[in-house]
Amino acid sequence: MAAEAAEDAAGLTPAEVEERLIDTVIASFSGTPDDRLRQLMTAVVTHLHGLIRDVRLTEDEWNRAIGFLTDVGHITDDRRQEFILLSDVLGASMQTINVSNQPYRDATEATVFGPFFVDDAPLIPAGGDIAGGGVGEPCWVEGVVRDTDGAPVPGARIEVWEADEDGLYDVQHDDDRVYGRAHLFSDDDGSFRFWGLTPTPYPIPDDGPVGRLLAATGRSPMRASHLHFMVTAPGLRTLVTHIFVSGDELLTSDSVFGVKDSLIKDFAQQPAGTPTPDGRDLGDLPWSRTRFDIVLAPAGV
Amino acid sequence: MAAEAAEDAAGLTPAEVEERLIDTVIASFSGTPDDRLRQLMTAVVTHLHGLIRDVRLTEDEWNRAIGFLTDVGHITDDRRQEFILLSDVLGASMQTINVSNQPYRDATEATVFGPFFVDDAPLIPAGGDIAGGGVGEPCWVEGVVRDTDGAPVPGARIEVWEADEDGLYDVQHDDDRVYGRAHLFSDDDGSFRFWGLTPTPYPIPDDGPVGRLLAATGRSPMRASHLHFMVTAPGLRTLVTHIFVSGDELLTSDSVFGVKDSLIKDFAQQPAGTPTPDGRDLGDLPWSRTRFDIVLAPAGV
Repeated sequence: MAAEAAEDAAGLTPAEVEERLIDTVIASFSGTPDDRLRQLMTAVVTHLHGLIRDVRLTEDEWNRAIGFLTDVGHITDDRRQEFILLSDVLGASMQTINVSNQPYRDATEATVFGPFFVDDAPLIPAGGDIAGGGVGEPCWVEGVVRDTDGAPVPGARIEVWEADEDGLYDVQHDDDRVYGRAHLFSDDDGSFRFWGLTPTPYPIPDDGPVGRLLAATGRSPMRASHLHFMVTAPGLRTLVTHIFVSGDELLTSDSVFGVKDSLIKDFAQQPAGTPTPDGRDLGDLPWSRTRFDIVLAPAGV
Repeated sequence: MAAEAAEDAAGLTPAEVEERLIDTVIASFSGTPDDRLRQLMTAVVTHLHGLIRDVRLTEDEWNRAIGFLTDVGHITDDRRQEFILLSDVLGASMQTINVSNQPYRDATEATVFGPFFVDDAPLIPAGGDIAGGGVGEPCWVEGVVRDTDGAPVPGARIEVWEADEDGLYDVQHDDDRVYGRAHLFSDDDGSFRFWGLTPTPYPIPDDGPVGRLLAATGRSPMRASHLHFMVTAPGLRTLVTHIFVSGDELLTSDSVFGVKDSLIKDFAQQPAGTPTPDGRDLGDLPWSRTRFDIVLAPAGV
């Protein structure tokens, strides 16, 4: 750039103009009554402007970013949450989990919530089946909920949800079917057990703007096979996590960065005819079983 | 936090877990075929994760951010662009203008585009009226378009648009009325002139999520009075700018940070009965006049 281009009409260098704008925007939020909101907005402005300056964003790129966010907004509805998907594929969801769920003793690690949880999933008894007509290989899941002192946690509310063997959650269909989700409670000794479906890999919804972003960046939409859990109990930190399937080749390339080593479990294959733990007759079907012992941190850590 | 909380199940500190995630996400974009897109995504990931880590974002705050963006998406349609408003009130639009329109000699400075431009505004002849039925005090605007060598630019396409005295643009009504916008071309000597409306201050649309953000942060939605221009000519850099009204008390608190000193112009008040430049009979109406000489940089600087 020519020397004659180095200053604006007010005699400031471009860098000075850019820095002054950041100061002005941050100052505009200085009257925010809520301290935390003021801190958040200051950080949003700092990083957003840092991004724009670092990449020397062009107006065309800004326009495309606005268009992209508009598309994300327009495809989002009660059944599809493309903003969560976007946060997921950028690792932002997982980073939020990291910073807001600090490791505590041997508490079970958290991972991403994902966009497919729904409130009011059916209640099942201990040993019940969450499949609800969803298609897939039956999978026996059992474990014990304990606190970090090793004491069993009775009455913990355990929400579980998963995709069927076609890789779709119930809410991805445009009717009101419910499958592959339920809630149950741990027994007096903290134990729980239920039938689910052996998790299978599936792509996150990739027919929208987030899918186009993944395609443009050469990334796969595939998620490692997993089963979702959310476990709540009074006085204990809510745990949102998955368990993953040992040996799944997608463990190292999960599209939402959700895998943690401690959450990878052995799903032992059981040939057809193997007696089931609860005597259920599966006929000629093979099945699998896994164990997931859950440790909940105290609330507030 | 207790010492026993300092490492995760894999023996990493929380900071190491967070940094490793950033590396993993950036690596996931390493196969992006387009170099610029890879650079942009790397910077997006870096700053987004930096934000989350700096503020130690909670899951509740993340949920509220997702909800906020969802609301921004859902109110956005062909007539209302809440993402642009959001970018505007965060100063991101102005910063993009800063980094992508470097000062060049005496070229006229740029400012924000705003959400109210529409293609295909009516063509008016030199000296024509852009009001189109919009209500407000008549304002005579004249000037010359030149390049940075001082040569007049004939045939420059000049788009102008503005709100009426009620502070509303035509597209903010839910019918198809058109007012306060037009395009015209500079004469052979680069000169242009038209009748518009004396700009008045107005709030940006504040009945949506961006308005709620401004309210929660104690900020005013008011914009300094202004008249929008977009000027295009072959071989020259497109100029998107406004002119502002000297003496407007909102010049120092414009809600989208668009004011630059060089763009503040004297709008000289003319008492009723003052002869008009083109002989137009305004009856008992007062009017105003201003001059805006435009200098276009070469394309590609």
